[in-house]
Amino acid sequence: MKIITIEQINEILPSVDLITEIEKGFIAYSQKHAVVPPVGELVLEKGEVHIKYGYIEGDKYYVIKIASGFYENAKLGISSSNGLMLLFKQETGEIASILLDEGHLTDVRTSIAGAIAAKHLAPKNVTKIGIIGTGIQARLQLKYLKDVTDCREVLVWGRGEKQINDYKRAMETSGFLIKSTQNANEVSLNCNLIVTTTPSKEPLLLATSIQSGTHITAVGSDTPQKQELHAEILKRADLVVADSIPQSLERGEIYKAIKSGHISEENLAELGNIISGNTEGRTSNEQITVADLTGVAVQDMMIAKAVYNSVS
Amino acid sequence: MKIITIEQINEILPSVDLITEIEKGFIAYSQKHAVVPPVGELVLEKGEVHIKYGYIEGDKYYVIKIASGFYENAKLGISSSNGLMLLFKQETGEIASILLDEGHLTDVRTSIAGAIAAKHLAPKNVTKIGIIGTGIQARLQLKYLKDVTDCREVLVWGRGEKQINDYKRAMETSGFLIKSTQNANEVSLNCNLIVTTTPSKEPLLLATSIQSGTHITAVGSDTPQKQELHAEILKRADLVVADSIPQSLERGEIYKAIKSGHISEENLAELGNIISGNTEGRTSNEQITVADLTGVAVQDMMIAKAVYNSVS
Repeated sequence: MKIITIEQINEILPSVDLITEIEKGFIAYSQKHAVVPPVGELVLEKGEVHIKYGYIEGDKYYVIKIASGFYENAKLGISSSNGLMLLFKQETGEIASILLDEGHLTDVRTSIAGAIAAKHLAPKNVTKIGIIGTGIQARLQLKYLKDVTDCREVLVWGRGEKQINDYKRAMETSGFLIKSTQNANEVSLNCNLIVTTTPSKEPLLLATSIQSGTHITAVGSDTPQKQELHAEILKRADLVVADSIPQSLERGEIYKAIKSGHISEENLAELGNIISGNTEGRTSNEQITVADLTGVAVQDMMIAKAVYNSVS
Repeated sequence: MKIITIEQINEILPSVDLITEIEKGFIAYSQKHAVVPPVGELVLEKGEVHIKYGYIEGDKYYVIKIASGFYENAKLGISSSNGLMLLFKQETGEIASILLDEGHLTDVRTSIAGAIAAKHLAPKNVTKIGIIGTGIQARLQLKYLKDVTDCREVLVWGRGEKQINDYKRAMETSGFLIKSTQNANEVSLNCNLIVTTTPSKEPLLLATSIQSGTHITAVGSDTPQKQELHAEILKRADLVVADSIPQSLERGEIYKAIKSGHISEENLAELGNIISGNTEGRTSNEQITVADLTGVAVQDMMIAKAVYNSVS
């Protein structure tokens, strides 16, 4: 049994082809080869714990991921998110590895899903990348977009000067040219690849300002309450893609847009089917596409396996 | 973060007062101070995985336990049960300890619950202990009964000579005088403290042969299918106790006896209430009492904490 520390994980990550591995996971999921039971949830006075677990049929391992959010941790100077991943052998139930990732692999697999969505759905010529938000996902999403687009011009939207400056400072050595705005409309008007990463409960982007030929990846909303895109955007979109259709009917942007009657379930495509080519993706540079990502346990399984295999 | 190996666990266990700790857990559970979400379950081609988790309000830790059963492992010469326990801080979600117990602490906490049931429900003068079954629980249950009764005479029932001989050999140095039978009725007729530990799907003990003044602890049945006691025994009993009443309505002996109309929910007492004295236990040496144990996550929480605190 191998215990893998956060230091080892950080060291190994740049050399792992996460996009290819997680793409395989989405394909298996959409082809119904993944077994993903309902998420376990533990609600405590100061935080929440989620247990995501499952396996791909015929694979060597199954994975159990524990991730927590304790929002008063900041006061104590420690990270609000925490957790670990556990890899077990499908053949015997023996534990193969404990990945002490402290929640980092969850952040990374979420960003990799964004990169995968952009790889398959963004227009050929990305002129400017728009990032809505300034937190961890706003940083990691941009970092991993580097692998799927040549565009290096970025417009970031943040709620305040401080957040924007922190973001710019953190991304200083990222190789991107980053400008900022506090007007989200400016992002829609100027960018044709947009990633939204906030926990907003009110739409930040409106349909009227979205330009034709834009792809939007929405990763911030993962509950029935949160919403970053006005539902009208999903209605206007030529293609609306979910990482998991069943999950998107219960949370996220798609849930909101179906609930308000802007779109219906038949309008949805699933990311794994776009990747495999089973479902047609973007067919012209003028189309508007939206990917709504709420996070699926196959991402956890694939990143845990990929890291484990690279360390071994 | 402390990683505790199976060797460390085996070394520390004899010095931990497990009965007292797990009694506290049952009391907290029956007083509704324990948060125990539904068990997570993963079914694979060759095995099953259960994820039990929860916490006691106001406590320092929450616990997640992973336990698996892979029944073809014996062919490979490795244990069919496996698993580990994880201890996290309720205050921050940080991991405090990983207990690499390989499923052993689950076996132990199950046996400790049997000892607790006997401590509170067995007649004053135990003349002979009856053990139904010859497997791990048949061994551990007897081992831990030593702490709660002076009786050292045992009659063990097994399905065949080989199993019985293996059992006797394993228990050679246990300090018990062990006789055996292949007729379960003989156990009922001769023993007034009986523990049933098999995965039988047909009743092994019948009401007619149970003597007055007997206490029976049934630990083998933990699914809706398994049954070791004829439902008539529960009907005849003066007191029927569950470790968890809600759980006993869905699995185990009580589930069977309610389904067949032999008893009803109002007849049930809960172990934590017997321990705390909130519910009256055995009131005479002539009563028949039954404890049906299907296993509750508080047992896992308490044993994990007790081991962790002893190692620290």
